[in-house]
Amino acid sequence: MFTQSPLKTNGSHSSHLPFGDQRTAPWYGQDILSVKQFTVADLQYIFEVAHEMREMVARVGTFDLLKGKILANLFYEPSTRTSSSFTAAMERLGGSVIPISEVKYSSVSKGESLPDTVRTLECYADVIVLRHPEKGASAIAAQYARKPIINAGDGVGEHPTQALLDMFTIIEELGNPNTPITAELDGLTVTMLGDLKYGRTVHSLARLLAMFNVKLNYVSPDILRMPEEIIAEIREKGITQTEYTSLDAALPETDVLYVTRVQKERFADLDEYESVRNAFIISPETLQAAKQRMIVMHPLPRVGEITMEVDEDPRAAYFRQMEYGLYVRMALLAMVLGKA
Amino acid sequence: MFTQSPLKTNGSHSSHLPFGDQRTAPWYGQDILSVKQFTVADLQYIFEVAHEMREMVARVGTFDLLKGKILANLFYEPSTRTSSSFTAAMERLGGSVIPISEVKYSSVSKGESLPDTVRTLECYADVIVLRHPEKGASAIAAQYARKPIINAGDGVGEHPTQALLDMFTIIEELGNPNTPITAELDGLTVTMLGDLKYGRTVHSLARLLAMFNVKLNYVSPDILRMPEEIIAEIREKGITQTEYTSLDAALPETDVLYVTRVQKERFADLDEYESVRNAFIISPETLQAAKQRMIVMHPLPRVGEITMEVDEDPRAAYFRQMEYGLYVRMALLAMVLGKA
Amino acid sequence: MFTQSPLKTNGSHSSHLPFGDQRTAPWYGQDILSVKQFTVADLQYIFEVAHEMREMVARVGTFDLLKGKILANLFYEPSTRTSSSFTAAMERLGGSVIPISEVKYSSVSKGESLPDTVRTLECYADVIVLRHPEKGASAIAAQYARKPIINAGDGVGEHPTQALLDMFTIIEELGNPNTPITAELDGLTVTMLGDLKYGRTVHSLARLLAMFNVKLNYVSPDILRMPEEIIAEIREKGITQTEYTSLDAALPETDVLYVTRVQKERFADLDEYESVRNAFIISPETLQAAKQRMIVMHPLPRVGEITMEVDEDPRAAYFRQMEYGLYVRMALLAMVLGKA
Repeated sequence: MFTQSPLKTNGSHSSHLPFGDQRTAPWYGQDILSVKQFTVADLQYIFEVAHEMREMVARVGTFDLLKGKILANLFYEPSTRTSSSFTAAMERLGGSVIPISEVKYSSVSKGESLPDTVRTLECYADVIVLRHPEKGASAIAAQYARKPIINAGDGVGEHPTQALLDMFTIIEELGNPNTPITAELDGLTVTMLGDLKYGRTVHSLARLLAMFNVKLNYVSPDILRMPEEIIAEIREKGITQTEYTSLDAALPETDVLYVTRVQKERFADLDEYESVRNAFIISPETLQAAKQRMIVMHPLPRVGEITMEVDEDPRAAYFRQMEYGLYVRMALLAMVLGKA
Repeated sequence: MFTQSPLKTNGSHSSHLPFGDQRTAPWYGQDILSVKQFTVADLQYIFEVAHEMREMVARVGTFDLLKGKILANLFYEPSTRTSSSFTAAMERLGGSVIPISEVKYSSVSKGESLPDTVRTLECYADVIVLRHPEKGASAIAAQYARKPIINAGDGVGEHPTQALLDMFTIIEELGNPNTPITAELDGLTVTMLGDLKYGRTVHSLARLLAMFNVKLNYVSPDILRMPEEIIAEIREKGITQTEYTSLDAALPETDVLYVTRVQKERFADLDEYESVRNAFIISPETLQAAKQRMIVMHPLPRVGEITMEVDEDPRAAYFRQMEYGLYVRMALLAMVLGKA
Repeated sequence: MFTQSPLKTNGSHSSHLPFGDQRTAPWYGQDILSVKQFTVADLQYIFEVAHEMREMVARVGTFDLLKGKILANLFYEPSTRTSSSFTAAMERLGGSVIPISEVKYSSVSKGESLPDTVRTLECYADVIVLRHPEKGASAIAAQYARKPIINAGDGVGEHPTQALLDMFTIIEELGNPNTPITAELDGLTVTMLGDLKYGRTVHSLARLLAMFNVKLNYVSPDILRMPEEIIAEIREKGITQTEYTSLDAALPETDVLYVTRVQKERFADLDEYESVRNAFIISPETLQAAKQRMIVMHPLPRVGEITMEVDEDPRAAYFRQMEYGLYVRMALLAMVLGKA
């Protein structure tokens, strides 16, 4: 019985055929590689499914939507938070996980290529979540894999599920669930604070927000400003962007304060670091000038850039943000496996 | 839809509200931090549930009591045995596990605090098992977590599930199941052997046994004697304690011989080590002077302090002890998740 | 309630009694240690079950044959591929896995013996898969364990599940499913290429193939020839074996080309390595001289010894080979747990 392997079709949005499935759901078999792949309608759909996931988890904790499905959680670099979040997402949907986090010790260190590793794992699993230190790794993986690839961060490249969970957090915390997503985000002022130069997270979120009628503020030390090419890209969409070196002027009108860490290592001149660092630490005093109805976000981990006293403030949304991440990842897994 | 996070209530016995559950079972949402938190009635209840777990496992192997529940197994230091035991306990109850054993590589190494790690993980999981090298870590985690924390060892602090499984082993092996726990343990002579100075295990077990009418013998090299503060604490409860430097006198009356390792590293003078080491190795010859109805226990791993020939003796209870550990951990997980 | 542990019976084929099971299926409780333990009828049975697994996976993806069963996946050295394959096999059958891959950090590094580790793990699990760097480790483990042990590679010793999946690949790809296994393999010419001296994989496969009426070709650099003792052993079974230093003469008659890597490190004289290396790289040009109905196999990972252009050729069976491995491991797990 000579069995011919189904020929892989190149390209990231090819149709995949996991074990025992012949589904035709719209997202079935798709890869999740970049925020650039989504239309507004896509986002609307993802967040609707994520919201349903939230309600199901609140009601029953776990359910068997993906029972019998297997996720290969392939992490070439450690990321406890992202890895745990995908594991939990799969398990809350009744699926199983193959954890592969020791890649440094594995066949990869014997010189195996990423395409071979991915083509091996798809023999065992139904979907692959990939974290890799090199930009573009997910796209390469998707080119070779017949099963869907979800990019869980590829170096300085993209981390699309982080950007999606950030936007979902804003919608769930500040939006009106009875209006379409555009109306939910329309008119919001989002202030990004800290290291805007190297922060992959804020770059992706800014790009995603630019699809809606929002106002963006960038507050950073001069050497860590938002890169000009991102500012230019967003300007083309007609979005108002304002740069600051201090939070004071931007805070009162802010609906979402997105905080990232200013790392000492970025500064050649430590005096300069010492002179600016305090301006980028959020404390209860900082928030006295903020609206009552606003939220503080942070991709975590934090190391002092938001003081622990802020945690008690109901506006501190960063732990809830983690939970929203669970729902977004549940939604994406269900979608690419044809179950949403 | 502005969602306020339920305010955490400080204190280890606060009420927690895991996903999709509104239970009011007595142990629901509680933390398991220290042997000091238990009353005799608590122990009675834990061991009843553990005994039921034993019977269920013997009958059906696994059952779905915790189906849909997720355990975050957070190990800041490796402990294959304890980690595997909790994993198996959760899986035998139909639940799932998020294994987090690479903490050294993770966000913690980026400087994240234990409270933040715990508050992130509880976004994904229903219960957190924590192993940490620092004393008091579990109490700190419990203070910040809304979900239950089970202490799986915090440095020189406590390892309460080990002490519980040790006591459960004694009851299951030597007790009369038709009498209350006090009567089961009443009158037993427990002899602890080896390194009694640094052994967290024997300290916790001695404290737990002191709640009952037992007799305690301590056999150790002079430099590894039971610490005076523990002896004093136990003396106040009216328990007879006797210290020995050799097993000979204590063995004939012993019902439970609890062996721990005498490590070479503890001795500044290696001649002293060589002179005492043989007195603390248990062989079939040693056991000729023991009762027929008694048990030999050991927390494992052993490295020569009980010879492999002893394994054939039905009094060798140390591997069964591992199995009792499974049932105790199943019981605790079911209890704090409101299912026992 | 003094409970006596069931006395272990020595020997690899002892009867085991996992939790909650009293089955009498023929393979129930057996160990899988070596290809030498199988009769032709055994192989026939294993491949029948594996073929059923293949069909079930194609039809439903996953099923609950081993629901409630727990596999301890004990890897003393890393092997992502083998470990993931067993994990997937157990999960596709509805069972759970305790992953133990950090043995270097674990109680073993505290000096615990393999027998003690295995006897601890069998308190938690129903079956143990063992990967160990030392030859004979699995046999020792099986001697002490009451639960079944599956050898996932013990150093230069055996890796029986690899040999079984290799043979299953040949049968599924080239055999006629309506004939008995002997007839399926009868008359095939299998050409092994590369490092035949150190390759555990080709040694085991050659031994297994020698039970059938096949013809074996060995193509290797002179310093990496098939060991004389294996050639002698196979000669006794009346199998035709021919040695070559180049593929050219052997390829046209080849039904199965089994490629392994020629490692630079094996050569004292690098000039010698450079002079032979190209003769052992398979490219589309190489395959022009091969039959249309033949297959190229490789145990993976590959590092250049088959060019990526070959992947497009339907004769390239090495990724399908990985998938057949899943089915063989599912079959073995189901068999030793009494469910096949």
